[in-house]
Amino acid sequence: MTDWVDKEKVFKDPVHDYIYVFDKLIWDLINTRAFQRLRRVRQLGTAYLTYHGAEHTRFTHSLGVYETMRKVLSHFDRKFGWPGDTRTRLLALCAALLHDIGHGPFSHTIETVFKFHHEQFSQRILLEDPDVNEILRRVDPQFPEDVVNVIAKKDKFPLVVKLISSQLDVDRMDYLLRDAVNTGVTYGRFELERLIRVMSPQGNDIVVKKSGQQTVEQYILARYFMYSQVYQHPVTLSSDVLLRHAFLRAKHLHMSDRALFLPDELRPFLDKTMDEMSVEEYLRMDESVMTYTFHRWSEAEDAILRDLADRFINRRLFGSIHTRELKEVEKQTVRDMFRSQGLNPDYFLAFGHSTAAGYHMYHQGITLVEEDGHRMDIADASPLVRSLKPITQYRIFCPKEVLRGEGSYKPIRGWLEALKI
Amino acid sequence: MTDWVDKEKVFKDPVHDYIYVFDKLIWDLINTRAFQRLRRVRQLGTAYLTYHGAEHTRFTHSLGVYETMRKVLSHFDRKFGWPGDTRTRLLALCAALLHDIGHGPFSHTIETVFKFHHEQFSQRILLEDPDVNEILRRVDPQFPEDVVNVIAKKDKFPLVVKLISSQLDVDRMDYLLRDAVNTGVTYGRFELERLIRVMSPQGNDIVVKKSGQQTVEQYILARYFMYSQVYQHPVTLSSDVLLRHAFLRAKHLHMSDRALFLPDELRPFLDKTMDEMSVEEYLRMDESVMTYTFHRWSEAEDAILRDLADRFINRRLFGSIHTRELKEVEKQTVRDMFRSQGLNPDYFLAFGHSTAAGYHMYHQGITLVEEDGHRMDIADASPLVRSLKPITQYRIFCPKEVLRGEGSYKPIRGWLEALKI
Amino acid sequence: MTDWVDKEKVFKDPVHDYIYVFDKLIWDLINTRAFQRLRRVRQLGTAYLTYHGAEHTRFTHSLGVYETMRKVLSHFDRKFGWPGDTRTRLLALCAALLHDIGHGPFSHTIETVFKFHHEQFSQRILLEDPDVNEILRRVDPQFPEDVVNVIAKKDKFPLVVKLISSQLDVDRMDYLLRDAVNTGVTYGRFELERLIRVMSPQGNDIVVKKSGQQTVEQYILARYFMYSQVYQHPVTLSSDVLLRHAFLRAKHLHMSDRALFLPDELRPFLDKTMDEMSVEEYLRMDESVMTYTFHRWSEAEDAILRDLADRFINRRLFGSIHTRELKEVEKQTVRDMFRSQGLNPDYFLAFGHSTAAGYHMYHQGITLVEEDGHRMDIADASPLVRSLKPITQYRIFCPKEVLRGEGSYKPIRGWLEALKI
Amino acid sequence: MTDWVDKEKVFKDPVHDYIYVFDKLIWDLINTRAFQRLRRVRQLGTAYLTYHGAEHTRFTHSLGVYETMRKVLSHFDRKFGWPGDTRTRLLALCAALLHDIGHGPFSHTIETVFKFHHEQFSQRILLEDPDVNEILRRVDPQFPEDVVNVIAKKDKFPLVVKLISSQLDVDRMDYLLRDAVNTGVTYGRFELERLIRVMSPQGNDIVVKKSGQQTVEQYILARYFMYSQVYQHPVTLSSDVLLRHAFLRAKHLHMSDRALFLPDELRPFLDKTMDEMSVEEYLRMDESVMTYTFHRWSEAEDAILRDLADRFINRRLFGSIHTRELKEVEKQTVRDMFRSQGLNPDYFLAFGHSTAAGYHMYHQGITLVEEDGHRMDIADASPLVRSLKPITQYRIFCPKEVLRGEGSYKPIRGWLEALKI
Repeated sequence: MTDWVDKEKVFKDPVHDYIYVFDKLIWDLINTRAFQRLRRVRQLGTAYLTYHGAEHTRFTHSLGVYETMRKVLSHFDRKFGWPGDTRTRLLALCAALLHDIGHGPFSHTIETVFKFHHEQFSQRILLEDPDVNEILRRVDPQFPEDVVNVIAKKDKFPLVVKLISSQLDVDRMDYLLRDAVNTGVTYGRFELERLIRVMSPQGNDIVVKKSGQQTVEQYILARYFMYSQVYQHPVTLSSDVLLRHAFLRAKHLHMSDRALFLPDELRPFLDKTMDEMSVEEYLRMDESVMTYTFHRWSEAEDAILRDLADRFINRRLFGSIHTRELKEVEKQTVRDMFRSQGLNPDYFLAFGHSTAAGYHMYHQGITLVEEDGHRMDIADASPLVRSLKPITQYRIFCPKEVLRGEGSYKPIRGWLEALKI
Repeated sequence: MTDWVDKEKVFKDPVHDYIYVFDKLIWDLINTRAFQRLRRVRQLGTAYLTYHGAEHTRFTHSLGVYETMRKVLSHFDRKFGWPGDTRTRLLALCAALLHDIGHGPFSHTIETVFKFHHEQFSQRILLEDPDVNEILRRVDPQFPEDVVNVIAKKDKFPLVVKLISSQLDVDRMDYLLRDAVNTGVTYGRFELERLIRVMSPQGNDIVVKKSGQQTVEQYILARYFMYSQVYQHPVTLSSDVLLRHAFLRAKHLHMSDRALFLPDELRPFLDKTMDEMSVEEYLRMDESVMTYTFHRWSEAEDAILRDLADRFINRRLFGSIHTRELKEVEKQTVRDMFRSQGLNPDYFLAFGHSTAAGYHMYHQGITLVEEDGHRMDIADASPLVRSLKPITQYRIFCPKEVLRGEGSYKPIRGWLEALKI
Repeated sequence: MTDWVDKEKVFKDPVHDYIYVFDKLIWDLINTRAFQRLRRVRQLGTAYLTYHGAEHTRFTHSLGVYETMRKVLSHFDRKFGWPGDTRTRLLALCAALLHDIGHGPFSHTIETVFKFHHEQFSQRILLEDPDVNEILRRVDPQFPEDVVNVIAKKDKFPLVVKLISSQLDVDRMDYLLRDAVNTGVTYGRFELERLIRVMSPQGNDIVVKKSGQQTVEQYILARYFMYSQVYQHPVTLSSDVLLRHAFLRAKHLHMSDRALFLPDELRPFLDKTMDEMSVEEYLRMDESVMTYTFHRWSEAEDAILRDLADRFINRRLFGSIHTRELKEVEKQTVRDMFRSQGLNPDYFLAFGHSTAAGYHMYHQGITLVEEDGHRMDIADASPLVRSLKPITQYRIFCPKEVLRGEGSYKPIRGWLEALKI
Repeated sequence: MTDWVDKEKVFKDPVHDYIYVFDKLIWDLINTRAFQRLRRVRQLGTAYLTYHGAEHTRFTHSLGVYETMRKVLSHFDRKFGWPGDTRTRLLALCAALLHDIGHGPFSHTIETVFKFHHEQFSQRILLEDPDVNEILRRVDPQFPEDVVNVIAKKDKFPLVVKLISSQLDVDRMDYLLRDAVNTGVTYGRFELERLIRVMSPQGNDIVVKKSGQQTVEQYILARYFMYSQVYQHPVTLSSDVLLRHAFLRAKHLHMSDRALFLPDELRPFLDKTMDEMSVEEYLRMDESVMTYTFHRWSEAEDAILRDLADRFINRRLFGSIHTRELKEVEKQTVRDMFRSQGLNPDYFLAFGHSTAAGYHMYHQGITLVEEDGHRMDIADASPLVRSLKPITQYRIFCPKEVLRGEGSYKPIRGWLEALKI
């Protein structure tokens, strides 16, 4: 069913040392256009504006997820004889490799503006991209659908789904380590090899030996720290605000039939519904297109778009301050104040909030198993894990000169204190 | 003369852990558009197509060169009281930070096509970019010229020049370590802290204590290994061929007045001499522009440009084989063979050579000093260093299907053997 | 007051890369017999029987504590001008270097048998060892007393005391990192440089910027993990039991005037009170003496001592099982069972408990300070830290053959279950 | 033939992350007294007096050699189906694990004094130690002899011998990495995983793919650097001189029937030939015995022994200076000068030389193989390797006070210059 490549292929990798490819199927998938496009999509979106090392791409991460899955399967095979059949093994490897294939540039930001989900495209690519689909169909005609079933988190292959997307999945294992290495922080480090060694397949679940509790705690904490220190760093959130506002302004201009540079690659995102857009159209979009567009927008006729794009390109980011959660009427007051100073609050003001990652036990928790077979959720065993309740923080974002009250601006801190915000 | 920033600024860095900024001057330079542009120029050009981790940029490297200089100066200050004056210290720091500011996208490749040198623009930017120049002039009106003097390797500040560009310079110290970390290889590692500790300023020269000979050897070898394993890896060279050929084809089409997508940012590179081009025009170019252009070229009307651009974007690289050095008449025979198979040798064939880094003693060698003051070049002291003679290797690059003789192609190996090449 | 050494001295170190010595005072202290003795006392006692890499000594750690203090003082000096005077700087450095100088072989274990505290000897050494005292007195006649004052945690120099021994001290910073490096686990890693950067002296306290909360959390968790994974690993505890029982048996034999190999170095520990013992006598003891003694005891006439010593030397350790907390009457029952099987429970049975490190807020907590000066204990700010309540675990230790019920032994698990223990 | 252990055993390791044990045979060998003794023999002898981190033992290294062999075999099995049979696999693993089992304390030094070779005892232990021999014989009665055959480098199993002891062996691979990690230097680092991947068994030889030439060069250079920087560091050599002289003095005193503390464990080394000594007697010796003996000798009646032992224990090492190679008559002159100053040159003077590791091609070189099967020695392919000729350096060792001419001593440098040495 599967051909071994003529000689084993390896990729040198800063996280795993080597990434091993033994199957021609995997090798061919890596070489498709759809997969190579991931080289032009950064793993952490705008985080490189906070941590300059965060320049790594989803291509790199996807290879790492594949390799982590390969390691897990190698352990499961040796210890438990699972999965036993080549098809399930390939299913798990392909799903690991391809689960992010639909990611667009700065995904999380542009999805909110253009109303789509990259997951949807990840699935469509497997079925509709001729190259990817043809390669997957070599296993059997049903295979592409089955990989989609896994990355859609459906229930046909529950164990594989657990390995790809749960609180203890190969995706997160790779990104915590990789983002730590690239940003230069130690917060995301954990004992990967030991974590894999304490995991085992049990029925439809992945469980962890009780003796491995602290290894899991260390992994959960890695995630906790990385959320606060990297993924939801205020400077990164502020970069996202700029990006979102620029897109919103461009959309507004386009809807109003105002002159606007729009590359062919971006046009369908504005003119079509996601269902109308073809996979081919979708795959033409990447961060080089978006960055180029920002270049052009930084010279746009429209002053607002020009300013926002220029700020993004040249890293003149918005600043931010902490607030409590605001009521709509309070937000309205702040917006009015901005307007009264000649600033359009739709574009120069944002109320943001970030939620640090907690541990969610009821929706797919992590199960510990004692030697006598007794099972419990890690949250029941670990006060540490229980303490990680999601905490929401609120911030107001706006240009730094407004924040500081430079020039003709009144300092925003003063306003807010007056408002007791 | 210099203001300290209100609180010291740091950048988290995968190589140096933290990069420290104490001077407002440095902070302001980092925040200029010209410097931020370096975020959009990869450090290693196309090497990311060989080592997927090599996605780091010249922004990151430039900060690292600055930090390495800061460490060297801190050591020199403590041990030798050099330089003693703030102006020279700032001169060294600014030159370290800005020495790469003129780098364009895929510099080494496009410079050969468009006939210019990034060094020339590095110098012009310091003098002509209004922001950068204004910040540098805060020290004194002569300061920008003096930084240019250093990065042009002129002789006004010989010690600072040695620190910036010699066989033992902060530029190389940072890039060897940084490229090693990002590609994941150990070849570029060396004992940075010890290397700095054995260096000292002596007259107009930087010398090294004899007891530090092996530390220098380790550093020279790091360079030797990185050249072969990374910088001149055949796959990287092959990616450069594609890039160069695509540009040459585009230039040809443009000269022949054929239809061609040309972004405004690229146009001056084709239509103006480098002297005619303004710094502002130059700084509009970066890798997002180039990559976007390749996207569009991959859909060009011209079949050759379309194919080359598509190969680059989707990593369908040329393959290559070793040859001996070929005479012009032999090259002509090979070109004719390509032509006879319907392939334009100007675009689908390249004769390349790479020269592994040796140690060049006569042009700015590394001087060792014994305790009794006796000086010698490291090449005189070290058989190891002497053994590192530059070695040139020759390769022929062409599409893999031609190499393998797939489809209607005759396998090139056969031809070459027949030709005794 | 202090002489700079003629050239700066460095030690190459696996944790800090280099350890820098600038003061002749420090250099001379390192070269005393008392300090060199620490090369013969392992940092983690018997933990090398669990983690084979844990072979590092208190010598190494003491240099690391010194270096960490040097880094903290360098930061405090640059940012806050503290301490300002050389004497306080030397006081802090000497206290850091010497705080462990009284550690004996397998300290924690032999202290319980021979009834003394190494802290007491650390203090006496500074006052009574002629070399150490003479060197310290070079600063001024009061200096040795002042260093003692610091390591005795008295209140004359509260800030220095905080830096040496509190929940956020240089001792712990070094040992967590060092023990992690040597055992090969990542659990003890944290962001040392950032931690130092968020600390500041404030009045008589060391406080931490609120923005550094997670850095402190990471450090507190490093300790939490290292306690469970390394310091209180059941195998290490079991090794300690053997050691303790062998000493107890030897003491018993000696008291009963039974024949026993006793090296001169050990004799005073049995025959004198700690007050009677001189510092010179104390310093003759180290792990080579103890290990040699165990060699001899492994050939002792007394069967019990011979067995215990042989088990220790040849790593035939006791096993252990989890229990709940036992009442004295239950323990008595277990002891009787051992006796009924021909095993002396004083030596072949131990009831142990270990308490994982929690965070103790009321006795010297860690204070966070917000930008507006508001102070709070980290436990008030961090649910994570609050969750780290000390948890006590109970174990029964005995020979593995008894545990498994091999030979004529009845399996202990069976007994205990019958007893509902 | 081999039993799998009930659950796979692992050791956490600073070099290999985890060391895996799958065979009960290996597990049982590790738990023998003879193997556990290696915990009391440092890997690098006295080098810990130069690099304080070098406290690791031969126990640790032996596990690492085993693990490296396990990795090599795993690669050879997957790629070449070698060795195919379990017996050869176990032979290679046992030989790797046990090849150092005969190492005594400070081996290289005491062997010259007591005239024996640890290799001889390594072999005898496998045959004569009842535990080790019994475990090995479980494979078959011939098995212990065959392991001896391998570690004696005989020709029955040439491929296994090559893997254990040649210029490219698992012993060296582990110790270079391990010694680098523990001393904290980068000099010993190389690409272990890649090195293994380019190796292959070919007939009776281990060969390396030509494309892996630089990986081998990096490994050979690691050795070159580690020799100069660590193994033959002048301070380490000086520590060895002290050790050797103390032993020689003790031997002299014992031969002269002078009073001397001699532990039972050391006595056979003085009173018996190595052939007369039993394996049991040999195995009683370790570094705790030797260090304890030095303690006692540091209080000896004999002034010379007392001084030498005290210097060693308290690290008051001899100093040294470079010389050219001296003729016997010149040495005699220097000895006379020492005598004339009241110093016994047999104990307070040493003429030493160290030879940096070169690459020896004719006795077991490293063979490269090109794709077309062409073979060559790496020295023929690599100028770098050829440049590594063994270089001998000469030094004179004596007390530092003599070197500096302190007190009544005339400075030795002066003498030597006068002698033109």
